[in-house]
Amino acid sequence: MRVWDRPALALAPSAHRRVHNFSGGPGALPAEVLAEAQEAILRAPGSDLSVLGISHRSAWFGDVLAEARDNLRALLDLPSEYEILFLQGGASLQFSMVPMALLRGRSQAAEYVVGGYWSAKAVPEAQREGLVRIIWNGQDGGFSRLPRAGELSHDPEAAYLHYVANETVEGLQFHRVLGLDGVARVCDMSSDFLSRPVDCRKFALIYAHAQKNLGPAGVTVVVLRRDLLDGVPDGLPAMLDYRNHVHMGSVYNTPPVFAIYVTLLLTRWLRRQPDGLAGMARLNEAKAALLYGVLDASGGFYASSVAVPDRSIMNVTFRLPDEPLERRFLAEAEAEGFYGLQGHRSRGGIRASLYNAVTLESVRALAGFMEDFRARHA
Amino acid sequence: MRVWDRPALALAPSAHRRVHNFSGGPGALPAEVLAEAQEAILRAPGSDLSVLGISHRSAWFGDVLAEARDNLRALLDLPSEYEILFLQGGASLQFSMVPMALLRGRSQAAEYVVGGYWSAKAVPEAQREGLVRIIWNGQDGGFSRLPRAGELSHDPEAAYLHYVANETVEGLQFHRVLGLDGVARVCDMSSDFLSRPVDCRKFALIYAHAQKNLGPAGVTVVVLRRDLLDGVPDGLPAMLDYRNHVHMGSVYNTPPVFAIYVTLLLTRWLRRQPDGLAGMARLNEAKAALLYGVLDASGGFYASSVAVPDRSIMNVTFRLPDEPLERRFLAEAEAEGFYGLQGHRSRGGIRASLYNAVTLESVRALAGFMEDFRARHA
Repeated sequence: MRVWDRPALALAPSAHRRVHNFSGGPGALPAEVLAEAQEAILRAPGSDLSVLGISHRSAWFGDVLAEARDNLRALLDLPSEYEILFLQGGASLQFSMVPMALLRGRSQAAEYVVGGYWSAKAVPEAQREGLVRIIWNGQDGGFSRLPRAGELSHDPEAAYLHYVANETVEGLQFHRVLGLDGVARVCDMSSDFLSRPVDCRKFALIYAHAQKNLGPAGVTVVVLRRDLLDGVPDGLPAMLDYRNHVHMGSVYNTPPVFAIYVTLLLTRWLRRQPDGLAGMARLNEAKAALLYGVLDASGGFYASSVAVPDRSIMNVTFRLPDEPLERRFLAEAEAEGFYGLQGHRSRGGIRASLYNAVTLESVRALAGFMEDFRARHA
Repeated sequence: MRVWDRPALALAPSAHRRVHNFSGGPGALPAEVLAEAQEAILRAPGSDLSVLGISHRSAWFGDVLAEARDNLRALLDLPSEYEILFLQGGASLQFSMVPMALLRGRSQAAEYVVGGYWSAKAVPEAQREGLVRIIWNGQDGGFSRLPRAGELSHDPEAAYLHYVANETVEGLQFHRVLGLDGVARVCDMSSDFLSRPVDCRKFALIYAHAQKNLGPAGVTVVVLRRDLLDGVPDGLPAMLDYRNHVHMGSVYNTPPVFAIYVTLLLTRWLRRQPDGLAGMARLNEAKAALLYGVLDASGGFYASSVAVPDRSIMNVTFRLPDEPLERRFLAEAEAEGFYGLQGHRSRGGIRASLYNAVTLESVRALAGFMEDFRARHA
């Protein structure tokens, strides 16, 4: 069926059943943020124009950028020596921009932790630019656990250390900061940025695409310590040189205006939540604990391959006894209004993503469904 | 407040004064497209989810991509040997991606026509990758005209020819196809794509960011002849290698889902217009003729620096006798609901952008305002 053959859209929510979005990304956004985004499509607040037709060099958009930065700075308690950028291209483009800026032309190696699918994708992009030392490769163990502190040997002369805080595909998450204080830490926080407090001062550069906890697909936030810019080599493609984006305040060229506006709405929403990111972390931990509790009490019916200390608060992955049962689980779940539960295409199985906008109520409903499904099929 | 608790959106424009959006970009979008985009924020048609929270690997988004491609193929009468990509980074990233793919490692030079602000920005990005021969530089003449056919000397051995079809800043537009049939033509059509028919078979690669005639900021359409891919060198950053995007059907990584969805809506809207792009071109020509008529009849009050044969149908630029009068013009215009008329920051003056979604009625209103303003201030 093509899009245009589909039945006409009924806007009245009463006509629709309750929907729970557990998508791995683009993921759920808060209902208030969706309502505000919807309003701005017709007319952006404080303007007479649609947010989709407003100049990125207007005073209106200047205010959007400034407030989005201020909100992030407040949420993260970010010191003034850090810049905040809104870029395009997702984490995948950061896989290249980081080593172009920090590795090209250097004699030292960069250290990469390969903890899962996404951190593995970052390695070849760095290898194009210089020496890479992989200090952990979890692939041999099927990405079932992350390294303990004693298993990593860091070089105090490394160009930088790169790791992915939360591996969305496998459901593995670091619950500590890696590396040495004397070496620049570069961290891909795409799937757990703003889901818990983070001590930004420990990092030289953090990047996160928006489509998990921060907004819609199409914008990527980069937080970087300004002194890093001194070492960026000349001759980079203009769009891949952080210095141009810093110099132009994220409007080197036309940025994704709408995606940045929704990110602003998201940061406002976060600032309205009780106790900021600490409160958000407690809520996210409670949501994850509910599902891991169902797994642990299932007698192996819901099997996780993830080591308990490395369990992700954001992505709970598990398998059922066989694939036909997994297909049935997904079909019954969708019929009940639980969306986006299929595992990543590289791995299969089930994945429930519990980003900030997923409510405790939705997770309770899913836990209930899982217990019921097991009772019927175990 | 949840979405369903909010008062119904007031779609009736009667509550607000009439607004005419002449922004140079992001520019006006059709009212129907805005209404459809707005609906999808709450629930995408054919889905239970918001378009902002739907997976880019869902069947729903697969349909969106397929239909958007089909619509573009139909509008452009595009042969099957061409691919259509939806990328991020705007024309500015294409300034780098093009020479990385087509110039790096070659001994031949690429030919660049520098007809205005934007084509000048493309040159240094190409020079990083190989030899560039500038076959026209309009900068010395203050970008007041484009080259006649006899003024360009093309090399049949060139790696490719690059030019910008419409210079948004200056208001200059080529009304013919440049170059030799034996040399790959690469054209930045960011500001006139889909505004008039184009014989795509004459081009090897066309790129256009969406925020003029094609959708909101955040997505860039690339149309390329598949045989070009054979010559792309290995070792490019993965996100900057067209082959990866072709191979993965524009979902190499998470694409800007919403921006692509709005582009789909825009292509549907275009297909509903009478006589397709030819009809669109007639309308755009009529709109431009109205404003150029006001300029020509103003006795020099509204002065254009653009040579008559190179006048743009998309961007009408002009100056008033002095800058205070220009500021007054902009202020009075905005008070009357005419937005986005300030010239590009590099150039000053006035610019009225007449993209597809700008109605003849809006242009008539602007023409009337201009005549009235002149009568009061000349």
